[in-house]
Amino acid sequence: MELNVAIEKFKNTMKQLRAYNHATSLLYYDSVTGAPAGCQKGVGDTMQFFSEVAYKLTVNEEAFLVLDTLMEHLNELDPILKREVEEANKSVRDMRKIPMDEYLEADRAFNDAQFAWHKAKVSNDYASFEPHLAKLVDITKRFSGYTDPDKDMYNAQLDKYEKGLDKATLDTYFGLLKEKLIPLIKRIGEAEQIDDSFLYRSYPIEKQREFSDYLMQVMGIDRTHCAISETEHPFTLNFSKYDVRITTHYHENMLASSMYSVIHEGGHALYELNTGDDLYGTLLANGASMGMHECQSRFYENIIGRSREFIELIFPKMQEIFSEQLSDVTSEQMYRAVNKCQPSLIRTEADELTYSLHILIRYEIEKMLFDGSVTTKELPDLWNRLYREYLGVDVPNDTNGVLQDSHWSGGSFGYFPSYSIGSAYAAQIMHHMKKTINILEVIKDGEIHLITQYLAERIYKYGKLLTPNELIMKCCGEPFDPRYYIDYLTDKFTALYGL
Amino acid sequence: MELNVAIEKFKNTMKQLRAYNHATSLLYYDSVTGAPAGCQKGVGDTMQFFSEVAYKLTVNEEAFLVLDTLMEHLNELDPILKREVEEANKSVRDMRKIPMDEYLEADRAFNDAQFAWHKAKVSNDYASFEPHLAKLVDITKRFSGYTDPDKDMYNAQLDKYEKGLDKATLDTYFGLLKEKLIPLIKRIGEAEQIDDSFLYRSYPIEKQREFSDYLMQVMGIDRTHCAISETEHPFTLNFSKYDVRITTHYHENMLASSMYSVIHEGGHALYELNTGDDLYGTLLANGASMGMHECQSRFYENIIGRSREFIELIFPKMQEIFSEQLSDVTSEQMYRAVNKCQPSLIRTEADELTYSLHILIRYEIEKMLFDGSVTTKELPDLWNRLYREYLGVDVPNDTNGVLQDSHWSGGSFGYFPSYSIGSAYAAQIMHHMKKTINILEVIKDGEIHLITQYLAERIYKYGKLLTPNELIMKCCGEPFDPRYYIDYLTDKFTALYGL
Repeated sequence: MELNVAIEKFKNTMKQLRAYNHATSLLYYDSVTGAPAGCQKGVGDTMQFFSEVAYKLTVNEEAFLVLDTLMEHLNELDPILKREVEEANKSVRDMRKIPMDEYLEADRAFNDAQFAWHKAKVSNDYASFEPHLAKLVDITKRFSGYTDPDKDMYNAQLDKYEKGLDKATLDTYFGLLKEKLIPLIKRIGEAEQIDDSFLYRSYPIEKQREFSDYLMQVMGIDRTHCAISETEHPFTLNFSKYDVRITTHYHENMLASSMYSVIHEGGHALYELNTGDDLYGTLLANGASMGMHECQSRFYENIIGRSREFIELIFPKMQEIFSEQLSDVTSEQMYRAVNKCQPSLIRTEADELTYSLHILIRYEIEKMLFDGSVTTKELPDLWNRLYREYLGVDVPNDTNGVLQDSHWSGGSFGYFPSYSIGSAYAAQIMHHMKKTINILEVIKDGEIHLITQYLAERIYKYGKLLTPNELIMKCCGEPFDPRYYIDYLTDKFTALYGL
Repeated sequence: MELNVAIEKFKNTMKQLRAYNHATSLLYYDSVTGAPAGCQKGVGDTMQFFSEVAYKLTVNEEAFLVLDTLMEHLNELDPILKREVEEANKSVRDMRKIPMDEYLEADRAFNDAQFAWHKAKVSNDYASFEPHLAKLVDITKRFSGYTDPDKDMYNAQLDKYEKGLDKATLDTYFGLLKEKLIPLIKRIGEAEQIDDSFLYRSYPIEKQREFSDYLMQVMGIDRTHCAISETEHPFTLNFSKYDVRITTHYHENMLASSMYSVIHEGGHALYELNTGDDLYGTLLANGASMGMHECQSRFYENIIGRSREFIELIFPKMQEIFSEQLSDVTSEQMYRAVNKCQPSLIRTEADELTYSLHILIRYEIEKMLFDGSVTTKELPDLWNRLYREYLGVDVPNDTNGVLQDSHWSGGSFGYFPSYSIGSAYAAQIMHHMKKTINILEVIKDGEIHLITQYLAERIYKYGKLLTPNELIMKCCGEPFDPRYYIDYLTDKFTALYGL
């Protein structure tokens, strides 16, 4: 095949896939936001059909010939097209190894499992979700056998979300966190406790919605291209850099819950909103990896959003919106409250310091699910035992235990560790950013867009053009090093608790 | 082509079209509900692509051969497939006469015009919308030349929304309304006026949302399969009978506005929710015609929703929700207020009696646009002149004048008359329903589902399987007759105003 013919065919296929992805993502988004609960039948039919079309578009002899031709001439392509071809080739290389009927069956299973999880969580009914989960694990293992027959099945999953990440790295990483953070958390447990009771007063949801709008404004999020809505589990979705959606979940008696969901998802949104214009419409117009995405969300949530300066900046507005609830609270009390360290049940509500222990538990469970040393039926017991052992908390029911996260219902095994790695990236980037920007000063002045600009120049604009490691090198001039994360947490929480 | 091959191919194509329609409808729905304003670029690209795919699926030699084969064997097909083939053949017969590049250009123009209208209405800027409207009129005329070269261009439009309807029928119909209703409205204008000032107190939107939920419950709308959201102009959309959406628009100082939008759109929703299970997934799983759809929405809005018995039924709940605003109001005062006759500016806010004059104005303008006796540039002046002449009101700006409705921005010319015909159908059906059901008693007892059952059995379950005329015959045992509508309005308003 002629190179120019291959290029044209490739671009045409990408355009078509973009449309199908747009529709499929919107069908999902709508099904968890505006749709009536009974929409499942129609949504499932349409998604399955589109999935079939997308599969046929990418897995056929001509498409393979197009990719083979482009791969042979990689160095003649412009840098964006080159990386896009590499990405497409990688995904198709996996896809063509999966028989079509199994691929379609899997798609339907993922769709069904998501609905089943939504229902099971509401009714605290793990048993109704368990067969779906078992099926997803089976499918994932089977597919791993097709795509990476020589690789450890769980390592294959980890690599999907964070290129190069494996069990060996994570065993070392979590080992270091355990060694340094468990003793710190223990000392904090023996220190005088922070009063955060005012966070659990009654905060009307209408007021919280107003507060979300304000937070997005402070973060400099362009509402022309970013909407917010409400779902069970907060997430960010981008149809393109011109159309990004974040979601949150309001709890009337937990002010900090939606507040930090909005800032967290807002960080994801800023990444997508600031990918380069030159990448629009290509496979590269997305964050570089799950870890790099979590790096951004946690940078805004924790490094910015839980700093004393940020709370000082927004506190007058908080007191204005929640005048009744916060009249007897000071900015310093608010700062201390949103940083309170307390082992707890729910990952998304966890404090910055104990957060990684929640991830550790999921990591260990996933490892066991994939090496076969535990079955999905045994998950609630294992989950509850590990929460007791590592966090010292008793899990009262599965809704607040093994059913709390949506990830597994979407077949995302090996995703959780990227949350923790992302926080570690963020601390390292912050360390080096400080040479150029007086971060705390900038936050105090409400100039958060300067931080966003810094990150956009070094990370966001590249989309998937560079790998996570290349981006860390670009930002920090050195490879990834978890030491900064440990230091950052130790310094912050030692000072906070006067240890 | 073998008949069984043709049947299989036809069903396969229908399945694919259903998926594309689902996605395209959802993209539109989302763009006017949850999407950020800047989504246009991506939405336009994806919709155009799907439109192209759908065109190619239905307009090609094999598809024509399939339809020709099925049309030859019509009487061998089961009744549902037979009607579906007739419908498909009708739409493709038109479609294949339109050159593909023009069809695609039109699709883009419709999409652009809708966005332009949204903007123009907000900023009272008809001039920015006018070129879009002119283009849509041109396209519609041009397409009419392709599809119905021997037919009057406006008659061709009317026929699209209500089979068999034409200018001759409507000239007679509106002539009768003018003759009987204008004098009645004049006598009412000279009678003692109804006080409806309490409808314009401040009704918090959060409370109005609660009221909408209550109204949908009273109407017996199954929320598992019907959601409500908010848009500039209320509408109903069905992805299938399992997933129907209605929208409303809340005005803080106009209680009746959203209240009757919800009941009106709720009527449309009940029609779609009750199409037969045997029609699911076919082209017939929709209302029979625009007029028959409006018949349902106006049956619920006016015949039920504006009856004294309905107001008596819901008034205790109204006083509970709006305790501050309605403490000094009686049920009888509310009944009189929501039926107040007063010539006004906005069609969707018009009272039951003057409503048809709003339609008459649009009908006359559309006739002139299509016979070339007026240009889109002259529309605001013409609009304002007719409102003065027929309704005696001065139009202060285009936002409340020629820009008020979304229909023309979607290329729906010839749609408006079906609203009026629908009201006339409703009055005729009510007359005959009374032989079986004591309508007012049923409403008073909150048993509206009995009315819905009656309509479902005789109209809803048939979808597009029967024509409007066949449905009127089934319900009434006689053909359409506008006399019932005139009688109903005359009796109701004569009594209300003590004439």
